[in-house]
Amino acid sequence: MAARRGLEDVTLRQVAAEAGVPARQLQYYFGTRDHLLLGALEILNADAERRAAERMADLGEEPSPRALVRAVLFELLPLDDERRETQIVHAAYFIRFLTDPAMATPVRDSPHALEELVASLLRHGQALGQVHADLDARAEAAFLVAGAQGLQPPVLLGQYTAQHATDLIDRQIDRVFPGT
Amino acid sequence: MAARRGLEDVTLRQVAAEAGVPARQLQYYFGTRDHLLLGALEILNADAERRAAERMADLGEEPSPRALVRAVLFELLPLDDERRETQIVHAAYFIRFLTDPAMATPVRDSPHALEELVASLLRHGQALGQVHADLDARAEAAFLVAGAQGLQPPVLLGQYTAQHATDLIDRQIDRVFPGT
Repeated sequence: MAARRGLEDVTLRQVAAEAGVPARQLQYYFGTRDHLLLGALEILNADAERRAAERMADLGEEPSPRALVRAVLFELLPLDDERRETQIVHAAYFIRFLTDPAMATPVRDSPHALEELVASLLRHGQALGQVHADLDARAEAAFLVAGAQGLQPPVLLGQYTAQHATDLIDRQIDRVFPGT
Repeated sequence: MAARRGLEDVTLRQVAAEAGVPARQLQYYFGTRDHLLLGALEILNADAERRAAERMADLGEEPSPRALVRAVLFELLPLDDERRETQIVHAAYFIRFLTDPAMATPVRDSPHALEELVASLLRHGQALGQVHADLDARAEAAFLVAGAQGLQPPVLLGQYTAQHATDLIDRQIDRVFPGT
């Protein structure tokens, strides 16, 4: 909804209409419009995580660290309508957080979960001899995640094809996992 | 101005007031509000490029390809108020382009100038024996630029310090320029 109308157009009234409950009731649960927007973001992120977990499950019984890193990074690209929609909404929230620092406080202190997930997969790859032992897993993971994030805008704007973005990520994965 | 008030609040009237000319005259020059916004973006980008060129000039008489790649990537981080402001405005334009595809047409077809600049510096590094000859300069450049772009949001939101982001980039530059 936020992606269709622009986050700034989302009001308690519209959220209530879409949810089919009285605005007064929503306001009771969320308190303020800011809390409502943050609550909506949590629901969006939980949905995205559930779908990501389903795609991970499709990788089979015991996916390799390499296959998992690839899948995690591909979650950051608009490879289908759901991811595209989620990423556009995140971009709208980003602007809101920039212009309203108080609202950004909950996300500012959030742990870098994605980065730590990729780092732990790289460490697993190191234990299996598939990743160089002297690679700094955390720093490499942070740059891989940043690179995938940075490929999002040009794909969303049609400057890169999705195929070009996944090729660029695959090259980096080939480098990081030379032993596979 | 766009960063302060949100791009969507910028109207012909406000731009005219800030420029000190009658709105009618601005409208004559730019035709539509879309053209005005794109014109404002061109002016913003020209300013940013001029300041970037000044910082490059500060690198000395004959800066190494390595030093130039580093400086180009650091232009993408909010390392001072001017870069921070420019990057916030770009984020606002990004949302506008997503929600108004017709307006994005001029940027969609723009050449990937930054990526090609970094690629040419990597090729220069290869000619000097400072970069592995078998590195795909264009693909590596694209991922370095994407990584720097992807580090922008967490620095703007205060999730990463600027120092952490520059450290992450320096690690990648160490990797790409092992012979320096």
